[in-house]
Amino acid sequence: MSYIAVLPPWIVLDPLLHSWLLEDIGRGDRTTGSLLTGEVRLGCADWTAKQAGIIAGLPIAARVFQLLSHYANADKVPSGIGFIPMDVLLMGERVALNIAMRLSGIATLTQQYVEKIADLPARLVDTRKTTPGLRLLEKYACQVGGAINHRMGLDDAVMIKDNHIAAAGGIAEAIARIRQKMPYPLSIEVETTNLTEVEAALESGADIIMLDNMPLDLMHQAVQFIRSHSHQVKIEASGNITLKTIRAVAQTGVDYISTSGPVTRSTWLDLSMNIVNSSTDSLS
Amino acid sequence: MSYIAVLPPWIVLDPLLHSWLLEDIGRGDRTTGSLLTGEVRLGCADWTAKQAGIIAGLPIAARVFQLLSHYANADKVPSGIGFIPMDVLLMGERVALNIAMRLSGIATLTQQYVEKIADLPARLVDTRKTTPGLRLLEKYACQVGGAINHRMGLDDAVMIKDNHIAAAGGIAEAIARIRQKMPYPLSIEVETTNLTEVEAALESGADIIMLDNMPLDLMHQAVQFIRSHSHQVKIEASGNITLKTIRAVAQTGVDYISTSGPVTRSTWLDLSMNIVNSSTDSLS
Amino acid sequence: MSYIAVLPPWIVLDPLLHSWLLEDIGRGDRTTGSLLTGEVRLGCADWTAKQAGIIAGLPIAARVFQLLSHYANADKVPSGIGFIPMDVLLMGERVALNIAMRLSGIATLTQQYVEKIADLPARLVDTRKTTPGLRLLEKYACQVGGAINHRMGLDDAVMIKDNHIAAAGGIAEAIARIRQKMPYPLSIEVETTNLTEVEAALESGADIIMLDNMPLDLMHQAVQFIRSHSHQVKIEASGNITLKTIRAVAQTGVDYISTSGPVTRSTWLDLSMNIVNSSTDSLS
Amino acid sequence: MSYIAVLPPWIVLDPLLHSWLLEDIGRGDRTTGSLLTGEVRLGCADWTAKQAGIIAGLPIAARVFQLLSHYANADKVPSGIGFIPMDVLLMGERVALNIAMRLSGIATLTQQYVEKIADLPARLVDTRKTTPGLRLLEKYACQVGGAINHRMGLDDAVMIKDNHIAAAGGIAEAIARIRQKMPYPLSIEVETTNLTEVEAALESGADIIMLDNMPLDLMHQAVQFIRSHSHQVKIEASGNITLKTIRAVAQTGVDYISTSGPVTRSTWLDLSMNIVNSSTDSLS
Amino acid sequence: MSYIAVLPPWIVLDPLLHSWLLEDIGRGDRTTGSLLTGEVRLGCADWTAKQAGIIAGLPIAARVFQLLSHYANADKVPSGIGFIPMDVLLMGERVALNIAMRLSGIATLTQQYVEKIADLPARLVDTRKTTPGLRLLEKYACQVGGAINHRMGLDDAVMIKDNHIAAAGGIAEAIARIRQKMPYPLSIEVETTNLTEVEAALESGADIIMLDNMPLDLMHQAVQFIRSHSHQVKIEASGNITLKTIRAVAQTGVDYISTSGPVTRSTWLDLSMNIVNSSTDSLS
Amino acid sequence: MSYIAVLPPWIVLDPLLHSWLLEDIGRGDRTTGSLLTGEVRLGCADWTAKQAGIIAGLPIAARVFQLLSHYANADKVPSGIGFIPMDVLLMGERVALNIAMRLSGIATLTQQYVEKIADLPARLVDTRKTTPGLRLLEKYACQVGGAINHRMGLDDAVMIKDNHIAAAGGIAEAIARIRQKMPYPLSIEVETTNLTEVEAALESGADIIMLDNMPLDLMHQAVQFIRSHSHQVKIEASGNITLKTIRAVAQTGVDYISTSGPVTRSTWLDLSMNIVNSSTDSLS
Repeated sequence: MSYIAVLPPWIVLDPLLHSWLLEDIGRGDRTTGSLLTGEVRLGCADWTAKQAGIIAGLPIAARVFQLLSHYANADKVPSGIGFIPMDVLLMGERVALNIAMRLSGIATLTQQYVEKIADLPARLVDTRKTTPGLRLLEKYACQVGGAINHRMGLDDAVMIKDNHIAAAGGIAEAIARIRQKMPYPLSIEVETTNLTEVEAALESGADIIMLDNMPLDLMHQAVQFIRSHSHQVKIEASGNITLKTIRAVAQTGVDYISTSGPVTRSTWLDLSMNIVNSSTDSLS
Repeated sequence: MSYIAVLPPWIVLDPLLHSWLLEDIGRGDRTTGSLLTGEVRLGCADWTAKQAGIIAGLPIAARVFQLLSHYANADKVPSGIGFIPMDVLLMGERVALNIAMRLSGIATLTQQYVEKIADLPARLVDTRKTTPGLRLLEKYACQVGGAINHRMGLDDAVMIKDNHIAAAGGIAEAIARIRQKMPYPLSIEVETTNLTEVEAALESGADIIMLDNMPLDLMHQAVQFIRSHSHQVKIEASGNITLKTIRAVAQTGVDYISTSGPVTRSTWLDLSMNIVNSSTDSLS
Repeated sequence: MSYIAVLPPWIVLDPLLHSWLLEDIGRGDRTTGSLLTGEVRLGCADWTAKQAGIIAGLPIAARVFQLLSHYANADKVPSGIGFIPMDVLLMGERVALNIAMRLSGIATLTQQYVEKIADLPARLVDTRKTTPGLRLLEKYACQVGGAINHRMGLDDAVMIKDNHIAAAGGIAEAIARIRQKMPYPLSIEVETTNLTEVEAALESGADIIMLDNMPLDLMHQAVQFIRSHSHQVKIEASGNITLKTIRAVAQTGVDYISTSGPVTRSTWLDLSMNIVNSSTDSLS
Repeated sequence: MSYIAVLPPWIVLDPLLHSWLLEDIGRGDRTTGSLLTGEVRLGCADWTAKQAGIIAGLPIAARVFQLLSHYANADKVPSGIGFIPMDVLLMGERVALNIAMRLSGIATLTQQYVEKIADLPARLVDTRKTTPGLRLLEKYACQVGGAINHRMGLDDAVMIKDNHIAAAGGIAEAIARIRQKMPYPLSIEVETTNLTEVEAALESGADIIMLDNMPLDLMHQAVQFIRSHSHQVKIEASGNITLKTIRAVAQTGVDYISTSGPVTRSTWLDLSMNIVNSSTDSLS
Repeated sequence: MSYIAVLPPWIVLDPLLHSWLLEDIGRGDRTTGSLLTGEVRLGCADWTAKQAGIIAGLPIAARVFQLLSHYANADKVPSGIGFIPMDVLLMGERVALNIAMRLSGIATLTQQYVEKIADLPARLVDTRKTTPGLRLLEKYACQVGGAINHRMGLDDAVMIKDNHIAAAGGIAEAIARIRQKMPYPLSIEVETTNLTEVEAALESGADIIMLDNMPLDLMHQAVQFIRSHSHQVKIEASGNITLKTIRAVAQTGVDYISTSGPVTRSTWLDLSMNIVNSSTDSLS
Repeated sequence: MSYIAVLPPWIVLDPLLHSWLLEDIGRGDRTTGSLLTGEVRLGCADWTAKQAGIIAGLPIAARVFQLLSHYANADKVPSGIGFIPMDVLLMGERVALNIAMRLSGIATLTQQYVEKIADLPARLVDTRKTTPGLRLLEKYACQVGGAINHRMGLDDAVMIKDNHIAAAGGIAEAIARIRQKMPYPLSIEVETTNLTEVEAALESGADIIMLDNMPLDLMHQAVQFIRSHSHQVKIEASGNITLKTIRAVAQTGVDYISTSGPVTRSTWLDLSMNIVNSSTDSLS
């Protein structure tokens, strides 16, 4: 069960990585800056996982060191060796580990959810409950763990909730008004909590119907009802999904199960980095 | 046990909050943008904690809505009412909740650590293991939970580790070289793993000696040794601190116990927000 | 035929407006800065269209003056009057006119396309051929003129073209691989140029099939073929759409007709702004 | 008639190009990101003009691909080949074409104006009516078409209009006050609409006198009047300049003719880009 | 002798002031942040000059406090009182004083130069030798002291030096090539060091001729030579201008004397700020 | 007496250098851009100090040219030669010289202070009186001249002044409140002006006691008093330190002497740069 996740291109991510490095380095690494000057020492780093889990974020950790290397005095660095300057290793270590540990923790828990329903057609999807600033990367970690991403933000899909329906004066009115204005390839999803709302959403032409916090039997009825009318509409279950409940939810026949669990209930995977100093001899 | 935490001024934090809003809003909130136009609807929000815990981050959540309100068409908003535009509530909801849930989770676990040692002189301190981009706020959450912050980055204190010592040729040499160059109010901390290193650090004039991953009895000996020579030097215990082990560590007599646990092992506290639509009548 | 377009929130647009003002003001408005100092003069502005057309962008023009007013020395400005400082009017005039003239030109031509097919079910959609930096606003202008927006960028819908198909080894393979990785509410569109490709796209589960540069009779056949198999799949015509050809294309029964014409072939609508200086008397 | 235009250095333009790429790529190119991963495919691109015209902006289009290549995983790319990664070609294509098509449209129409007066001493100059955000590049396109740039913004020349004169209390007063404050190498231009104003501007020491919207015979008189008093003052005609009227205006003897026509009345030149996939064999 | 200087609009300057505040505040004012929380204390500040001199930069200092006030929790601040929050005063004090002291030092020395030639027609102008980042403000301080600004950067005037002449193959060639490409209202200045170069510059149509580092008698000859041929060309003396030499230089009849002295040889004017704490009573 | 200063890493400084280049280049170097196009000319630069002094900032000047070279069309530049493109030299010259002249002036005056006390234990430290925007670099220049840096901003040390003491209700109260909230490795410094305050600061556990503007005999008493109670507390003298008074102050036995003199009373060191054009032959 190997998933290849889609990482946004570096032109999108690099500004983020830059800001992380500046957050940690501040006005300069006092310790390294005071001790590792003059001659350039090179080194390399071994990473070890002290815990079983799914590793995510290694390309990002590598990019952290790559970015930092661009700012080192490259002309002093002997080329053609797989080692990089020690000060780069020391200055980038914490940031690289922090992101990899956080993302690996998410990927690990995601996979545990995914395994519960691996033999069923339902697919796990994530939510917009992500750490502010890390949306793209935490959703990447969910992919690494085997989930599919839900919408990335408020702009790439429409999700109609109770306040919207109230503002529009009904589900049908809301969908009609939105279809006139939103970019046409976007999907419209409607949150429903009972069969009346499910029916209204179905009749109004929703692309996705979310069954929100429904008891299992009600969810089962809703799926049956929708499927008896349409095979195109996607059905998403949401609300209180846990490792214990997810399988039963999947068995109702929904297409997608969305949960923030892997993001909000995961802890960091314990990784460590060991820096190996290149001996002076090896360079001479 | 109430702690008042120090939140950095908004001039420092606002750019961060802005970037979070843009991350979520992207090119615009399709749903709200399509449905809530024309007349301005006002509303207000109730926040509920579905779980016991320490709440952190409410001022930040409030600031999210304040920032977003600056961008609303203020001249259409009736003044003098405690309600704010509905589209501001809907667009800011997720970001405000996400940060408050994350920070409250940290504060809650921090407090559990702190309670274990509340009657002992040792104080809990955090680390640089923080989510990239959230350093200031996660350390604020640690304060809310009762901890003291350790250094904020690589620039506001010196921490000498094995690689630095190797580069300098010894603890004494490292400290001497650093004292010549670093800003003079900064402290120098040295990581030690055995008594020989403790002695070297003490003799070389370290301000803080970290006892890293020492067994309890060795830690006890180290504290005795240091205290027999100096009452000024601060002693910090670090490594594998858990809710189970922290009390025994504190009883060795160390001044500070540092752990990333509240940040890396906490989950989000479950909060929810309920938007109350102001009736049309109340405005007429 | 009045359309209400969705303008992204100011938190998204303001940075753009700022950069435009700085582009024009540079190191400072030499003329205004040298002549309009000391006492604050107020004024207001009349806008006139010297040409018939659809006006778009007035809220943006107004925002330009609003932004600039934030930077004026507000405490010198008598409040409660509908006039704003003269230097704000003079410094913002060119930027405000430039954007409104450009957008109105687009809206005007868009409407001409839309009118040609107003009685047919087909809807006009725009493309990614937009002036760099103005994507959101030019697409807003298209909405003002009566079109629906197509995808806003490379990230909110999938569009499979020949190079992608070649890379994947076929349409079916491409769609299968993409479904595993893209956010699930996104749509997949496939470009086709003949019936074989149309059939492959249909069988592989494309959400939207683009008929690219097809002769009218081929397009007609493609529509018949698709409709005989599915009523869910959306059909989009594209390529060489002009005011002369659009009606015939719409009559083939496609759902959407996409063209960059309103953006690439429109000229600016001629608008002018007349500044009325408030007399000194009216302020005394 | 070949003109070599002055393109601002990349350190000035690159931030602009970056923002364009991010505008189009958003959170990542879903199609390319999902299909072109793993092995690096290389390709190159042929550009074709489907319309006769003056091409402008090719260096900028090339820079778009160069910038994007910096963010590709360069270590996977075989060096020494003239091909670049396919994902770079696909992600940069639209932005590169959009800017080149827009600028080429401007250059093409500019040249048509220039040709009308090629045998006369008068020179064509552009205006500040440029697309917000594209000032530098649209003025570059005007140069490519054979025009000379007028002032680039509000800060590199003084232009005194009616509102300024009213504020200062007369042309002479305005010029005197400005000369005390503006950087001394800057020129002062005064807008005039009749001979009285022309005379006042001449006497007050204006460097450039603009004849704004004057009928041809009045313009002729104004030129005669100015030339009888000074050969240093530059004379600029402005207002309602079209391909039909420009030659007659030039024949009045003015030095410069300014018009926004090439920017506001041009359409995009039709260019297309064909991507050639490098065969797998050529890399083995 | 009072000069009113032109300060660029705040939309241009504010980002600079922001960056200064962040430079000083870093992650937060530890002292003020720890002590001045809870209730809002108000205060005001008296500024005192401990040295005679020309004060420059007070509007900028005031803006520093204004900007910082925007970030204070304004809803806690009693309105209608001339006092501002104490934490704003304490956090902005150093930045406000630093800029005012630096600019006042420049204005003071500028005025001493200006006074030496106050009865002569020659005017003092500044140079591009300014502290990186402070160009606009140091040139503003020069204006406050009575000087006129020279060009603001490399883009708003042409200055031909020896390397340029060598590259072009002569003064005439250089001017001819530049006239084809630069924005037409810009001036061309040529550096000359002897009469041959002066003659070449004059013949080639330079707008301004700089006499660089010429002995007084040679400068006198150059002025005579130029004036015998043209009264339009501006003459600028440059090089080794001091308070002792400036008067003799002005007496040669040059129009402008440029020197970096006020910027590079001035020291800070000693200013101090006294914060007055509003008593608690006055608020009750 | 050679000091090796700690320069912050380029990832911290580069954005600053970028902004300086853009400040000077504006919309493009008109002179160089018009003359040095087409073929790439190479050159190199000799730097000369026209004045004796301590040179500081050469690595920064070199970085200016390095940054600018990244934006040159590198593929046209013959590699393996020590020359860089002429347009890079001409565009970067002023910025590179300006920063080096300013920093060298500071380093030179710093060294004069340092020499006065070179045989005494007291060390010179700088202050927060630095040019806005240049804090890190001016403090680097102070290091080059032999001083030690004081705190870098409001966040990396606590400095309790009279307003803070008033707000807290006494020195002891202030220190106690701060210790609860500030990051624990930070030092607390208290400003004192008489022996009563010195005693209070000592008893309250201040890490550093500043003797502010004390007469020499009072300062002597304060040092004696402090030393009779503690050898850990650092003592800093401040206020009216000049080249004439510094030695006597040092002889009172203080550990540190802080003064803004090297920053506020230094003038620029006169440096010049001579560009050597590579002959065409050497490239062929």
